[in-house]
Amino acid sequence: MEKIGVLGTGMVGQTIATKLVELGYEVRMGSRLLNNEKAFEWAKPLGDKASFGTFESAASFGNIIFNCTKGDVTLSMLKSLSAASIANKILIDITNPLDFSKGMPPSLISEYANTNSLGEEIQKALPDTKVVKTLNIVSADVMVDPDKTGGEPTMFVCGNDKDAKNETIKILNQFGWKDILDIGDIKSARGIEMLLPVWIETMMSLDNRYFAFKIIRSR
Amino acid sequence: MEKIGVLGTGMVGQTIATKLVELGYEVRMGSRLLNNEKAFEWAKPLGDKASFGTFESAASFGNIIFNCTKGDVTLSMLKSLSAASIANKILIDITNPLDFSKGMPPSLISEYANTNSLGEEIQKALPDTKVVKTLNIVSADVMVDPDKTGGEPTMFVCGNDKDAKNETIKILNQFGWKDILDIGDIKSARGIEMLLPVWIETMMSLDNRYFAFKIIRSR
Repeated sequence: MEKIGVLGTGMVGQTIATKLVELGYEVRMGSRLLNNEKAFEWAKPLGDKASFGTFESAASFGNIIFNCTKGDVTLSMLKSLSAASIANKILIDITNPLDFSKGMPPSLISEYANTNSLGEEIQKALPDTKVVKTLNIVSADVMVDPDKTGGEPTMFVCGNDKDAKNETIKILNQFGWKDILDIGDIKSARGIEMLLPVWIETMMSLDNRYFAFKIIRSR
Repeated sequence: MEKIGVLGTGMVGQTIATKLVELGYEVRMGSRLLNNEKAFEWAKPLGDKASFGTFESAASFGNIIFNCTKGDVTLSMLKSLSAASIANKILIDITNPLDFSKGMPPSLISEYANTNSLGEEIQKALPDTKVVKTLNIVSADVMVDPDKTGGEPTMFVCGNDKDAKNETIKILNQFGWKDILDIGDIKSARGIEMLLPVWIETMMSLDNRYFAFKIIRSR
């Protein structure tokens, strides 16, 4: 079974990492400091498939790496990693470049919106890493259990490397996603990240986070 | 039956206007010049329910007005109308603020994206008009016949006036939309307009415009 590094100890990182351990993967959760209490508490009940360490340690550990850090710190964190820890690996990027500085609801960080995206900036910063953008358009619970929406929603993936997208799709299938749409290279992260505002508006209107997008199509 | 003004003679304007005539509405199509050939050709086969004239004439004619002009000219056109032609009326805005100047695929016009939207700017420019944003997130054929997607997609509406949204929803129902989601005031036009990039990416990937978004939800 693949070894996976999960960068980030927040709700998304914990939910993804726990699901991966349940699926049988060996998972190392990474954070800024070695003695991160949330990572320690996460790993404790899960047995020897779960470990934790620095971002560098978790990235080095994984053959595949999930980026679950916050959008405003993710680039500086990724740039701090050694090339050996992340080059030639698959980086599944599920972050959202949200800007909370102008109040609620958040907008996107303007330098990553519309004519750019965080996904593209990560790929530019790590040219030897295979970046795949996906999963950022649903709540953490739905990421690892799309049946919670009561239907069969669509998950988008994009990235420059076909094999990396196929490996990502295999994990998405294990999470329960059946309808997965490859919408092109990493530039398509623009559209995927720009779904966040309508996701937030819908969440506030439904007062419910158990929903997801589906592309209804004639073929 | 209500009288409706349709501003714009392009494919969207023609498709909307024809459907409204078929539904029994009296429709006047508006354009910049009185002797617009496309408007003339549109009206000719449709009998006395269909007429055409200037933007001012079409706006004055309608109790409800559809804005189907291009996103980069829509504000100057709307600002050129007399208050008498448009004040206290419902303006259903289905434009997209697309910027083709940076090549394909288009981005959004930056001044209307992320922290603003064309829908909001229209409402600011016409404070006495009840602006409702909807329908801009599907192709013209799907706007007036969502069954073309082979399923039951979701249409978003937003706007500041509840009655105006209800009147709009009645027309959407007549177009065939069954799942309609009110996601709040006109500020939510941000999220609706920001759906365009992923719509374009999906259209290019599927090589098919007969699709639409659905919000799959647990209740």
